[in-house]
Amino acid sequence: MGPPPPLSEGALRVIPLGGLGAIGRNMAVFEYDGKLLVVDCGVLFPDMDQPGVDLILPDFSPILDRLDDVEAVVLTHGHEDHIGAVPYLLQHKPDIPLVGSQFTIALVEAKLAERRIKPYSLVVADGGTEQLGAFECEFFAVNHSIPDAMAVAIRTPAGTVLHTGDFKMDQLPLDGRITDLAGFGRLGAEGVDLLMSDSTNAEIPGFVTSEQEIRPVLDDIFRTATGRIIVASFASHVHRVQQVMDSAHQHGRKVALIGRSMVRNMGIARDLKLLNIPGDLLVSIDDAASMRPEEIVFMSTGSQGEPMSALGRMASGDHRHITVGEGDTVVLASSLVPGNETAVYGVINRLSRAGATVIHKDVAKVHVSGHAPAGELLYLLNMVRPSSFMPVHGEWRHLRAHARLAVKTGVPADQVALVEDGDVVDLIDGVARVVGHVPNRYIFVDGLAVGDVGESLLSERRILGDGGFIAATVVIDSVTGKVVGGPTVSAKGFSEDPAAFDPVLPVITAALDRASEDGVTDPHQLQQLVRRTVGRWVNETYRRRPMIVPNVLEV
Amino acid sequence: MGPPPPLSEGALRVIPLGGLGAIGRNMAVFEYDGKLLVVDCGVLFPDMDQPGVDLILPDFSPILDRLDDVEAVVLTHGHEDHIGAVPYLLQHKPDIPLVGSQFTIALVEAKLAERRIKPYSLVVADGGTEQLGAFECEFFAVNHSIPDAMAVAIRTPAGTVLHTGDFKMDQLPLDGRITDLAGFGRLGAEGVDLLMSDSTNAEIPGFVTSEQEIRPVLDDIFRTATGRIIVASFASHVHRVQQVMDSAHQHGRKVALIGRSMVRNMGIARDLKLLNIPGDLLVSIDDAASMRPEEIVFMSTGSQGEPMSALGRMASGDHRHITVGEGDTVVLASSLVPGNETAVYGVINRLSRAGATVIHKDVAKVHVSGHAPAGELLYLLNMVRPSSFMPVHGEWRHLRAHARLAVKTGVPADQVALVEDGDVVDLIDGVARVVGHVPNRYIFVDGLAVGDVGESLLSERRILGDGGFIAATVVIDSVTGKVVGGPTVSAKGFSEDPAAFDPVLPVITAALDRASEDGVTDPHQLQQLVRRTVGRWVNETYRRRPMIVPNVLEV
Repeated sequence: MGPPPPLSEGALRVIPLGGLGAIGRNMAVFEYDGKLLVVDCGVLFPDMDQPGVDLILPDFSPILDRLDDVEAVVLTHGHEDHIGAVPYLLQHKPDIPLVGSQFTIALVEAKLAERRIKPYSLVVADGGTEQLGAFECEFFAVNHSIPDAMAVAIRTPAGTVLHTGDFKMDQLPLDGRITDLAGFGRLGAEGVDLLMSDSTNAEIPGFVTSEQEIRPVLDDIFRTATGRIIVASFASHVHRVQQVMDSAHQHGRKVALIGRSMVRNMGIARDLKLLNIPGDLLVSIDDAASMRPEEIVFMSTGSQGEPMSALGRMASGDHRHITVGEGDTVVLASSLVPGNETAVYGVINRLSRAGATVIHKDVAKVHVSGHAPAGELLYLLNMVRPSSFMPVHGEWRHLRAHARLAVKTGVPADQVALVEDGDVVDLIDGVARVVGHVPNRYIFVDGLAVGDVGESLLSERRILGDGGFIAATVVIDSVTGKVVGGPTVSAKGFSEDPAAFDPVLPVITAALDRASEDGVTDPHQLQQLVRRTVGRWVNETYRRRPMIVPNVLEV
Repeated sequence: MGPPPPLSEGALRVIPLGGLGAIGRNMAVFEYDGKLLVVDCGVLFPDMDQPGVDLILPDFSPILDRLDDVEAVVLTHGHEDHIGAVPYLLQHKPDIPLVGSQFTIALVEAKLAERRIKPYSLVVADGGTEQLGAFECEFFAVNHSIPDAMAVAIRTPAGTVLHTGDFKMDQLPLDGRITDLAGFGRLGAEGVDLLMSDSTNAEIPGFVTSEQEIRPVLDDIFRTATGRIIVASFASHVHRVQQVMDSAHQHGRKVALIGRSMVRNMGIARDLKLLNIPGDLLVSIDDAASMRPEEIVFMSTGSQGEPMSALGRMASGDHRHITVGEGDTVVLASSLVPGNETAVYGVINRLSRAGATVIHKDVAKVHVSGHAPAGELLYLLNMVRPSSFMPVHGEWRHLRAHARLAVKTGVPADQVALVEDGDVVDLIDGVARVVGHVPNRYIFVDGLAVGDVGESLLSERRILGDGGFIAATVVIDSVTGKVVGGPTVSAKGFSEDPAAFDPVLPVITAALDRASEDGVTDPHQLQQLVRRTVGRWVNETYRRRPMIVPNVLEV
């Protein structure tokens, strides 16, 4: 499908720039009457098929020449996959207003401060309404694995959209702040033309276990542990940290926070009164290191097996303060993000080898998901009764499952917009229709550079990573075309056998001799000849496919 | 710890060559009175830290000069991680006898036939006893995710060892062949000096769900599916396939087997009466392709996301016979082996995108594990009451958890041999002690070659895979040392920016000029200079760490 037609008058356009087809880099653009509203601007973390990539950004190109039209970026909550790309967007235009709850704005401001950007931000409250240019936005409390998450209803003369952000419906959340289902019901009664809802757990039947049910499990662990306790979790999961602190307090242990993001985020959460730290519970890591093992809990980052994180360093035995050993208990109170298994189990094994008891979600109920499974999604669909539905935030398997749920609740199948990043959906009279497609590439961040790494380059990396390369160099006389040096063959990542290339040198020489007899002197042709010759030899001899790098130099 | 002392007279030595510290390449060597017995000889599948590796073998070197002393290789069951390295061992000495159950021997013989090896094999029956040279072996039925699995008790004058192989204790297995707990009890009453037991699920509390409980789930799926049904599973999981066939039969569908190993193994299973195929249930894939969607079930390989498998090809839309689309149901009735998540979810997403409903173990109970969890392991420990205990078949987290279970049942902590591959354990008077260590490397198979890929080479691959390489070539006069060609810079996997290296060329030239002024003409020194110069530039400019390949050619 090609580029979309100009937007008809009185219609609302929705362009998901990320979050549909992969979990991450969530970003949706709304257009009405020439003006744009953005909801979320997150990053996607690369998987093993994207080697060497640090982050993946949404492709901003469809709006890059229209940033003056952007009324605001609404941030539903403070997770990286919703706010992580904000710095990259604001690089283009630093004064786009950011709108979100208190905690969300505090997190994004802290992130921007590292890059010396001070954003224009607007803090909104649960139930509040803001007119953001052409868009009237109403904000609803939702429960998620980070405090202060929000859904947003966007009203325009062309219709009303409800975008849930990420959410679940724990009915007994730690902070008592439940997902505003009543508000959604009221909105549904007014009429919702398009519902965009979190699909992450749409495949999973049933309902979420309450965060509170983790507490007795933690208490059990804390009651029986005799040595040090180290708990790792996401650095933004304030309620999980709260429970660890409460359990530590109850069992007479102090808590030391480890890891830069853990310290920073819990400081913010405490300042905003989202985290309640009993009296003298917190100690510094230096003090903790000198305390007796049974007196201390370390609350750490590194739950995803990151080698440079606090826990990763402990597992490798090179943490500055903490050496894990016999008698220690490590709790990974976190999800295991698909793709991180090798890293996470590697950390668990290294800690186990050192003598620690490691408790993780396969072993005990020390984690609950932050996303609504099918049972809760049905509640939402039935409360809102939208005209049209667009599943968002998920891989294809999640979007497809969510679409089926919507149809089951009565959304007409042809009013379910099962779309992917870059599809352009126009909402006219409550009906969502795909009208075109805009460019949508994965924008890779690798080190300091953004966008110079693309798919073909990743494919080179995959070939190099799987088989290494063999470089064959020949020097020819630029006038006569005769070989005056080489062939020399060298390789990296191919074989540790020092004599591996002895047999191929005469083969290359013979091929060059034949070429010379045939009067071939063109360096490019000779290069192709060397590539073919070495490629055929290595395939026959080894059944491997390293990259062949022929190099014909003229002197 | 160094090499072990000579084995004392009357002692039994155990050397695990694989399976302790990683799940796979299971292999244990027993030595008594100068003679050796091997239990299992499997492969380990590489993870993402071992790029380009096809298989990992046990390190045979400690027994390679003693193969004449090997009385037999006992194979506990037919999974690749227990039999996959047999061809590589028999390469060294093809007439080592193989001992195992009927199905196990049939599978290993089929594997060896592909390499034109006809082994000396001995089929043993449940409850049978064989004198294998110095070792009296008694075989016990165990229940696992493949038929005909066995545990083996090894009796020598130095004591009795019970090696469970892989097992679980489904009390209602499809074939009625339960784990011979009564036999283990009898053996325990006689006295077991060392128990070696499967640790894979030692972290998991409780008991296994019966294989039979999958059937109603399959029936539900088969009852409601309107289009084609494609079920993927391990090609050796005869009972899972049996249930799919039974459900297909009940719902009036025919079954076509797809995938070379699926067809081969089910043929063997049928011949051995381990698989009961109702009347005219089976159809060829060609016939199936012309049948109506609601009449057919495809039973396929590819449950681990292998791109070249039948299911992998269907997902990519390039299977010769089958195009998956709207209305089709795909069931992944299998585990998800850690490390395969990206591949498996990739397949699920591609099938979902094509319109299929994909049911996998996160969504419905279509898989149960083949390994005993903690509850069952306790039963075994309490029945056998061994003097000493060695947890086997597991990563460190599993071995550690299993060791704790053993201690809880009364095995003295100092008689638990928590060891890893290559540790040498002597059993004297019922007490197992580590007495030394033998070489134990991962032996990597990559294409046709075995052993020319090692850790340092994998580290080169990882660097290349993450960041590509930058090659900088300079040609110098071999007499004067003067630069006569270059510098030229080329790269793979580094940047798609065609002008990326424009800024570094003058930097290299300047460095070479300074070297020339200083009288440096040694090619090796110039090479180091180029490497440093380019490396510093790329780090400052990009914050990346590609491999730098300097190349100073003399003509």
